[in-house]
Amino acid sequence: MTESSLAQAGTISPLAVVQTSTIGDNVTIGEFAIVRAGASIGSNVVIHPHAVIAEGVVLGDNVEVFPGAFIGREPKGAGATARQPVFERAVRIGANTSVGPHAVIYYDVEIGESTLIGDGASIREQCRIGERCIISRYVTINYNTTIGARTKIMDLTHITGNCVIGADVFVSILVGSTNDNAIGQHGYSDEHVVGPTVRDGAMIGAGAMLLPAVVVGERSIVGAGSVVTKSIEDDTLVMGTPARPVRRLERAP
Amino acid sequence: MTESSLAQAGTISPLAVVQTSTIGDNVTIGEFAIVRAGASIGSNVVIHPHAVIAEGVVLGDNVEVFPGAFIGREPKGAGATARQPVFERAVRIGANTSVGPHAVIYYDVEIGESTLIGDGASIREQCRIGERCIISRYVTINYNTTIGARTKIMDLTHITGNCVIGADVFVSILVGSTNDNAIGQHGYSDEHVVGPTVRDGAMIGAGAMLLPAVVVGERSIVGAGSVVTKSIEDDTLVMGTPARPVRRLERAP
Amino acid sequence: MTESSLAQAGTISPLAVVQTSTIGDNVTIGEFAIVRAGASIGSNVVIHPHAVIAEGVVLGDNVEVFPGAFIGREPKGAGATARQPVFERAVRIGANTSVGPHAVIYYDVEIGESTLIGDGASIREQCRIGERCIISRYVTINYNTTIGARTKIMDLTHITGNCVIGADVFVSILVGSTNDNAIGQHGYSDEHVVGPTVRDGAMIGAGAMLLPAVVVGERSIVGAGSVVTKSIEDDTLVMGTPARPVRRLERAP
Repeated sequence: MTESSLAQAGTISPLAVVQTSTIGDNVTIGEFAIVRAGASIGSNVVIHPHAVIAEGVVLGDNVEVFPGAFIGREPKGAGATARQPVFERAVRIGANTSVGPHAVIYYDVEIGESTLIGDGASIREQCRIGERCIISRYVTINYNTTIGARTKIMDLTHITGNCVIGADVFVSILVGSTNDNAIGQHGYSDEHVVGPTVRDGAMIGAGAMLLPAVVVGERSIVGAGSVVTKSIEDDTLVMGTPARPVRRLERAP
Repeated sequence: MTESSLAQAGTISPLAVVQTSTIGDNVTIGEFAIVRAGASIGSNVVIHPHAVIAEGVVLGDNVEVFPGAFIGREPKGAGATARQPVFERAVRIGANTSVGPHAVIYYDVEIGESTLIGDGASIREQCRIGERCIISRYVTINYNTTIGARTKIMDLTHITGNCVIGADVFVSILVGSTNDNAIGQHGYSDEHVVGPTVRDGAMIGAGAMLLPAVVVGERSIVGAGSVVTKSIEDDTLVMGTPARPVRRLERAP
Repeated sequence: MTESSLAQAGTISPLAVVQTSTIGDNVTIGEFAIVRAGASIGSNVVIHPHAVIAEGVVLGDNVEVFPGAFIGREPKGAGATARQPVFERAVRIGANTSVGPHAVIYYDVEIGESTLIGDGASIREQCRIGERCIISRYVTINYNTTIGARTKIMDLTHITGNCVIGADVFVSILVGSTNDNAIGQHGYSDEHVVGPTVRDGAMIGAGAMLLPAVVVGERSIVGAGSVVTKSIEDDTLVMGTPARPVRRLERAP
């Protein structure tokens, strides 16, 4: 193809499909990217090739969307799912946030400013994610979950539905969380399907599992590989399977 | 690009590459999707942008294929793999099934009706998956594995090769399974490379590991974080590392 | 679209964007793939549809790049990351190596010959991977990590930054490794952020976690589900949480 097909900074490739007219200044859109009518694109946004931006998606200034990312996925509630999805057809991505290659952001998600969404991270409907967070590679986040500012969730971790994670939390790699002791046998209801609450400043070690409805207290630490079956007070180090308190943690002065 | 490039319901985008003529009524194919000659597409199928449907793939009526999904991947047996892949150049996806964004379905796979394949799930050759299943996000399934009807396998779980999973099974998140105690040191043979068998109605908790050739009995439950080194009888709750029986489970009346 | 849009062996699709002129003989480039100016493509290379090959990427002879793979990703160091990325704008992929669908290879990565990179594997900057390795599906490898020849890393495993993995190592599925006991609280420095060292011939069982700076000795084996908190001598089997020596292993004659 010709030189005119280059996706250069500040240019919209003629090989992109751009159906919206709500586009800021100095926007770059790569080849074979798709921006649907009804999307809103801020200034200095970079949309790499093969990304798909659906109707109702709002990208703040300086947002970068890497190749193959898909923002504005409709949740699919087929016969096989217990919970029927509820959602608005909107996504809001804050300024300076970046969305990694092949990441999937469902409808009805809000992400704050200056957050990094890693390669292939998948965030379902009704989630709210704060500013200056890191949601790392292949992290999957389920429906109706809130994550506070400056929280970091490392690679290959799963955050369950109906979960609340505070600010300044660190969740290491390969951490799991669950929300249903009945494992789906009783169908879906908001009352008995409750994910963990992880309070501000807590740290969850690599490979730990958090069982339904447990609370991890402020600044508490869960050791690597622990299985947390009961709630943990503030400023407490726990370890083991099931996790038991090891000692109180002193707060930094 | 022009209005004619819209991927509207029931229309085939002029920006798609459609090489087959076996296409049902009311099919939608998005921009930059590829449907090879020799693929067969049922009625009311929706193929999102950037999906690739290879030769020999059969999509039933009402199937939905999300952006970037790749159906009909050839397994690649380079020098580095012990087992040389065996496969037919065919994939059959049942009616009403959906295939998530960036999912990869290898050749020689059959998937039943009304099943959900999650974002980025990857299913290798010689697998058979039942109807009304959920194979969730980033689940990877190895070669020659069978999964029964209505079974749910949650995010980031790995199902090994030469494995048999029954019907109505629930496998939680981040569960692992393995099939080779010699860890590849003796090369590949069907006799000593045997994955677990998980019988109908069993439940495997979050983060559990199932070692080669173990059998999990009908309706038995494996606690979160357990390492299963020995077979488990029917209707038994096991926990721990290594997993030991905790109690018998009463069957629902 | 017309017959001319077929991506046949040895042909470059007119629907691809090919901006480099450094291309060997008998190269196949699929529809909607992008090969930037300044990339170098060996003979008999196959680049599937929707792949992106950035400037400065060198693909050896017979390399195969599957759909949606992205080679030459720039690391993104936003406000949220402690460590500012350091990298050269180059990637070198050895002859006969294949890169799976949706895999992401960052800049400043070298991969040896005849290695398999699995579906969605993500390899960050400053990594060096040997020949005849398998880096399997959704494995994520962090910055500045070295992996020796013939080493196999199975699905959904995370290899941390500043990590050294020897030759002929086997790392099973869902294995985690970490590099920072302070969990990011002290900011980034090379001195206190140190990943594990896994020496030649070692084997790490499914779901094991390796904590910062531990050394796994030559030919040692870590049992499934273990949490390794201390270094392990050569030829030693360890198990448990925390992992303790179980017995010495005899070396093969």
